Amino acid sequence: MTSALTKEAAPPGAASIPLLEGLGERCLAEAHAFVHDRATECFSGRREGELAESILPEFASGGKCLRPMFAYVGWRCGAPDSDAAVRAAACLELLHCFALAQDDVMDGSQLRRGRPSLHVRFGRWHSEKDWSGSARRFGEAAATLSGDLFLVWSERMLRESGLDEEALARGWPRYDLMREELAVGQLADLVNDARTLPGWDTLLDVLRRKSGNYTVRRPLEFGAALAGCGPDVLVSLAEYGSLVGEAFQFRDDLLGVFGDPAVTGKPSGDDLRERKASSVVVLAAERADRRQRAELDELLALSEVDDEAVSRWRDLIEATGAHERLGELIRERADKALAAIDPAVFPAPAADALATLATRCTERDQ
Amino acid sequence: MTSALTKEAAPPGAASIPLLEGLGERCLAEAHAFVHDRATECFSGRREGELAESILPEFASGGKCLRPMFAYVGWRCGAPDSDAAVRAAACLELLHCFALAQDDVMDGSQLRRGRPSLHVRFGRWHSEKDWSGSARRFGEAAATLSGDLFLVWSERMLRESGLDEEALARGWPRYDLMREELAVGQLADLVNDARTLPGWDTLLDVLRRKSGNYTVRRPLEFGAALAGCGPDVLVSLAEYGSLVGEAFQFRDDLLGVFGDPAVTGKPSGDDLRERKASSVVVLAAERADRRQRAELDELLALSEVDDEAVSRWRDLIEATGAHERLGELIRERADKALAAIDPAVFPAPAADALATLATRCTERDQ
Repeated sequence: MTSALTKEAAPPGAASIPLLEGLGERCLAEAHAFVHDRATECFSGRREGELAESILPEFASGGKCLRPMFAYVGWRCGAPDSDAAVRAAACLELLHCFALAQDDVMDGSQLRRGRPSLHVRFGRWHSEKDWSGSARRFGEAAATLSGDLFLVWSERMLRESGLDEEALARGWPRYDLMREELAVGQLADLVNDARTLPGWDTLLDVLRRKSGNYTVRRPLEFGAALAGCGPDVLVSLAEYGSLVGEAFQFRDDLLGVFGDPAVTGKPSGDDLRERKASSVVVLAAERADRRQRAELDELLALSEVDDEAVSRWRDLIEATGAHERLGELIRERADKALAAIDPAVFPAPAADALATLATRCTERDQ
Repeated sequence: MTSALTKEAAPPGAASIPLLEGLGERCLAEAHAFVHDRATECFSGRREGELAESILPEFASGGKCLRPMFAYVGWRCGAPDSDAAVRAAACLELLHCFALAQDDVMDGSQLRRGRPSLHVRFGRWHSEKDWSGSARRFGEAAATLSGDLFLVWSERMLRESGLDEEALARGWPRYDLMREELAVGQLADLVNDARTLPGWDTLLDVLRRKSGNYTVRRPLEFGAALAGCGPDVLVSLAEYGSLVGEAFQFRDDLLGVFGDPAVTGKPSGDDLRERKASSVVVLAAERADRRQRAELDELLALSEVDDEAVSRWRDLIEATGAHERLGELIRERADKALAAIDPAVFPAPAADALATLATRCTERDQ
């Protein structure tokens, strides 16, 4: 609705169309079409066809498409609109699908985007068919293999995007870095000892290396590299990307504790139930006085965090002032990020898009 | 030792060195070096560094290197020796590592090449460090992620092999087909109902699409495509590859039932214990008389196949004549495969190598 209204209100002429308008839909349509074509090639007429032809394309186009949008905005910092660039940017959505499918298996997460996660859906399908063997093992294996296919298809989508060899040659090192950081970050997560909370500085370090870079900074750098942007643009995007990525993660952590399940699609207080050492949890521990710290240690030692414990933990976090302080840190980072985008260096449409995305990432409620 | 003797016996001059001599070692050295460099970049100085720097390079260079050898022989059907081609061929060993690491998780296999499989090693490492959480879940997740890294590194190794853009452009479609067939084949395996034995024709169809193509035919076609071979060579290699691949799998299935554990590195009668619908098991069922069939159904229905049942099952297979008949089918296929290699079409060193590899694949005891 908003999108249609904006279209009517805009003066005629392609140049006046804001860079972000319809961009997410364009990227998702490309991701859906690519996965649909590949899955049809692979599974058509087979016993498992019914599942792959609908489940995989739907999964590929069910997200917010944040990473492709940042990649495309990175591209527009140095090059004009291009369908090939949209396809190249959209390959990051398939990379994200790979990560989600396999992370949910490893973490045993039951929900994704408010719906059963991929391995749960595969497990139910196995039960409906009354096949032999364990439905859980089947679901996990099928989701892992789907993740593998998304990883392969992401790379094919970039290679076959239509961008020329020189653009691709500039993009590969950034793309490879993203893929490797994803697996390495998840491995690092596995070896982090869940029994002790890290300090604030350690947390920031892990966060920068993992989710912070992955969501904003790397996609921007990838798109700008494809477009052949110079070092001045790349350095500014790196600064903007680090700051917005961190603020994005802080917001995510606040939603993981205080978010409305009806909006986030995740159970209420999910991060507390999983005892995740998120920014708001660590910040509360750092700010706690002796009595609060003792109560926190008691909550951390629980074998199961039930509704009552979630509620106590939330009150405790609020009492330390961590909730409010994290909100301030988010706003500080968003402001600094916008200051990194020099209007003398960036084309106006790209700068406008970066400002809009910074707000969208840091003030969101889902 | 054999390799050193052969070297001494060969007359001087590079042209006289048989194509296969030292080839496996060359491919494995490339695979080891590539994985070592990547793992060092990713993990150096980290908590998980100790594991990734040694375990992953060792895993990458612990195999028989069959697929890279076929790919390189395919290359030599149309082009001279080249270090870049060896690197491109060796990328298939990393693809194989990806498949092994994740298949062993999905199948719950404890042994690989006579040693603990990757997820078992990771699980033990977790226990030694006394980290929190389940060692089994950690082992499975870490092996899955290592598989992901092998999948990414395989593609990077090909792209960065040093072959020119035109050669790579000819190779990508074949390479993509291999990657996709791997995941699709494993998915098809998961949905095969383990409670009923397939017929012989169904078994051959599944076998051709899965392991048969993967081990011999696709690697040969991939190498020949990189070298720019024409359709006459590609058609002959496809025929040779299908036949040798099938014979290779038949031999593998015989070893899975009758192989010596000290040589195969797998528990004795492993395929029977896992109730695998392998070629020798299916062939025995097809050839069984009424009494034998009843005994077989009884064995298939056991909740656990112990040593005594393995021994009974082996005797039953021998009594149907399936063991002997499968040996004949292997020899028939090897002969037909060699007849497909026309000396007027293939360079002599490549034809010689194909003859040697056909023997090595079909008469092996491990």
